[in-house]
Amino acid sequence: MANRVNLSESEMPRQWYNVLPDLPVPLAPPLDPQTHKPVEPQVLSAIFPMALIEQEMSAQRFIDIPDEVLQILGLWRPTPLVRARRLEAAIGSKAAIWYKDESRSPAGSHKPNTAVPQAYYNKKAGIRRLATETGAGQWGTALSFACKMFDMACTVYMVRVSYEHKPYRGILIRAYGAEVFPSPSDRTRFGRSMLASDPTSSGSLGVAISEAVEDAATHNDTNYALGSVLNHVLLHQTITGLETRKQLAMLGIQPDVLIGCVGGGSNFAGLVLPFVPDKLEGKKIRFLGIEPHACPTLTRGEFRYDYGDVARLTPLIKMHTLGHGFMPAPIHAGGLRYHGDAPILCHLVHHGLAEAKAYYQTEVFEAARLFLQTEGFLPAPETAHAIKGAIDAAKAAEPGQNVVFLYSGHGLLDLSSYDAFLRGELKDFAYPEESIKEALKACPDIKGD
Amino acid sequence: MANRVNLSESEMPRQWYNVLPDLPVPLAPPLDPQTHKPVEPQVLSAIFPMALIEQEMSAQRFIDIPDEVLQILGLWRPTPLVRARRLEAAIGSKAAIWYKDESRSPAGSHKPNTAVPQAYYNKKAGIRRLATETGAGQWGTALSFACKMFDMACTVYMVRVSYEHKPYRGILIRAYGAEVFPSPSDRTRFGRSMLASDPTSSGSLGVAISEAVEDAATHNDTNYALGSVLNHVLLHQTITGLETRKQLAMLGIQPDVLIGCVGGGSNFAGLVLPFVPDKLEGKKIRFLGIEPHACPTLTRGEFRYDYGDVARLTPLIKMHTLGHGFMPAPIHAGGLRYHGDAPILCHLVHHGLAEAKAYYQTEVFEAARLFLQTEGFLPAPETAHAIKGAIDAAKAAEPGQNVVFLYSGHGLLDLSSYDAFLRGELKDFAYPEESIKEALKACPDIKGD
Repeated sequence: MANRVNLSESEMPRQWYNVLPDLPVPLAPPLDPQTHKPVEPQVLSAIFPMALIEQEMSAQRFIDIPDEVLQILGLWRPTPLVRARRLEAAIGSKAAIWYKDESRSPAGSHKPNTAVPQAYYNKKAGIRRLATETGAGQWGTALSFACKMFDMACTVYMVRVSYEHKPYRGILIRAYGAEVFPSPSDRTRFGRSMLASDPTSSGSLGVAISEAVEDAATHNDTNYALGSVLNHVLLHQTITGLETRKQLAMLGIQPDVLIGCVGGGSNFAGLVLPFVPDKLEGKKIRFLGIEPHACPTLTRGEFRYDYGDVARLTPLIKMHTLGHGFMPAPIHAGGLRYHGDAPILCHLVHHGLAEAKAYYQTEVFEAARLFLQTEGFLPAPETAHAIKGAIDAAKAAEPGQNVVFLYSGHGLLDLSSYDAFLRGELKDFAYPEESIKEALKACPDIKGD
Repeated sequence: MANRVNLSESEMPRQWYNVLPDLPVPLAPPLDPQTHKPVEPQVLSAIFPMALIEQEMSAQRFIDIPDEVLQILGLWRPTPLVRARRLEAAIGSKAAIWYKDESRSPAGSHKPNTAVPQAYYNKKAGIRRLATETGAGQWGTALSFACKMFDMACTVYMVRVSYEHKPYRGILIRAYGAEVFPSPSDRTRFGRSMLASDPTSSGSLGVAISEAVEDAATHNDTNYALGSVLNHVLLHQTITGLETRKQLAMLGIQPDVLIGCVGGGSNFAGLVLPFVPDKLEGKKIRFLGIEPHACPTLTRGEFRYDYGDVARLTPLIKMHTLGHGFMPAPIHAGGLRYHGDAPILCHLVHHGLAEAKAYYQTEVFEAARLFLQTEGFLPAPETAHAIKGAIDAAKAAEPGQNVVFLYSGHGLLDLSSYDAFLRGELKDFAYPEESIKEALKACPDIKGD
């Protein structure tokens, strides 16, 4: 009985899977915030290289992964698919629980899967520096690593509350040779305006995105990189689902439920998208995204056009949103605190191809502790959401079924959060219907398709 | 060209390799601190189970690994052997550099390789709790993990300076369900006596060992566990060398230099001991141990009988020692701050089968940064010593030679040390000849063989 499935280097996927041409209903296009017409590719070229803009809109099902990218991904990929037998035993599961271990990357999460190609395509386009935001720090670490691999500079705007609570992240980012600033910062016009109105602002992902986009838009040698949400990010993350599909096939296993946590949606989508064709062919596979009650985008948001950031610099995208001004409660899974979600993922949920479920952080940390004390490894608070979802799915499953979740990252730089949990200091957050409705009023009044 | 060699689960070694019967000159026995006669096994049984005492003195070349131990080791083993091509390129090496990656265990180092069997044999002997010391925290984390796997309690005495500088380690230990106290503590007679004479004592490994041994000796249901030095610890660590030997054979490669950092000596010995028979058969393989100038046991210590701890509770063991009262400078590689070394390793060095080399911490952190910025992964400060050794060995090697080092652990819980390095705040330490001589005066006056 296998406990772990390794792929050899030669079995690493050579192409990403692009779901766009396989979607039964086409994706609603991003809109220009001024004209409300579909965004022209050249508008995006102020902050993205053409290769990524093409991937964003590609109609090709499979897209080659450049050799230079494969070489860097090969520093840790392929990643193993692992059977969590001791966890199964602890919860009395008659279903098998498998996890795809993306914590083994240099940055400790799935994020380098897209950071590496993004750095590569920008380098190739003559860009010298990338600017980005980071919440809990996973994405900032990943992009710092990727930029160093291609000898590029990197500037990270880190949500101030995380910057202060997780100092180790900043040190690691600097050790890779990147620069990191707490956001709101005095480095951008938008950051200065935020500080002027509230000098003690603890920041948010939406604010940090605005700063990074402004930095990129105002410097010729600098582009912007986003760690989730966009189509090309999800495309790059399909390498995890493609590997998982191979690994399950090697075991002769058909998955019954695929699970991931959802912040912007890229790790969950990376796992499930390569199984969309199977599902469309009639195979019974549930796609289950897990989010926090403190930021219930898929479970309580509205599916409509909204801005991606607080400063309204981004195109309008059609997604489940809580309103671009929504300020999620300060839970410890900082990577899940985003008011929207990836359009592709929202599209799947809207059309009934994927489901979502929300949990409170206390029960999520309980699940993390159980995983730690049975399987031995410390998950990131974000990842712990997927674990909680997998535990409940396994308990509800038929004997012999297979629950597969994406283990998106380790929690070794989140130990202050575990300290709060062990001391019994975690608070759970939910919102009354009224406050959700209020936040949604900020969305622009645009009809979808 | 392979970059990584994975073994399948079925290729994991089923036996440990015991070097004792293969040593050309027999090892000097541990002596009773009162009588100066060889220690009787039953004396050790106050703090160790008989199964481990038997392994300590076994004449069997191969010893079966119990199934229950293999199952837990299987949570992360076998570990990969990785080619560091980008590091090679950065230093212009014409030799190949390989590393055996022991950072992938739950505790993040090689330490669980022995923590798991130690917990298992104690559990089988009816022991309810294990007590131990930890310096940088790697061993305390590993034993906490191992005890949880066998539903045992665990008490960790952590050197106070590390406890305060590395709070994340303590949180992780507690998350595994263990208890952890800064040492010297008020939990033991010896700890209280230390605090009485110096209430602000920052502690040392020697002091923490004394506390853990006292705890075990004064509680019937409690035994002591040591993370290095002892023969049975090195025995358990041979699983890394046995795997490496298989992996190199799969590549058709004969190693030219095997390298590891040396604190107590267990990770280095685990790598090299399975190659001792090759060396005795005449194959040219260098064994190179790397230690800090701030604790130069193998390079400047004397090979003689000494105590393992400050309180003189342990048997006398013949080893390279700086004197049991030696207080190493507060370098960041806390795991290398021990006044002695494993008797087996010292024996190899004394008889010319192994060599040692010392480095300053600034050059070691420079090597760590180069590794991080080329291979992507953050090494522990201890591991960085091996990296520095490997870089210099590769530079000096003939084209086509193979340098193999043990990547003993990650540095994700040591980021405060990297912060000090990046800020230029690291100090280098060395000792004048006189101070070494002075510290050695504390050794008991016993002739060796």
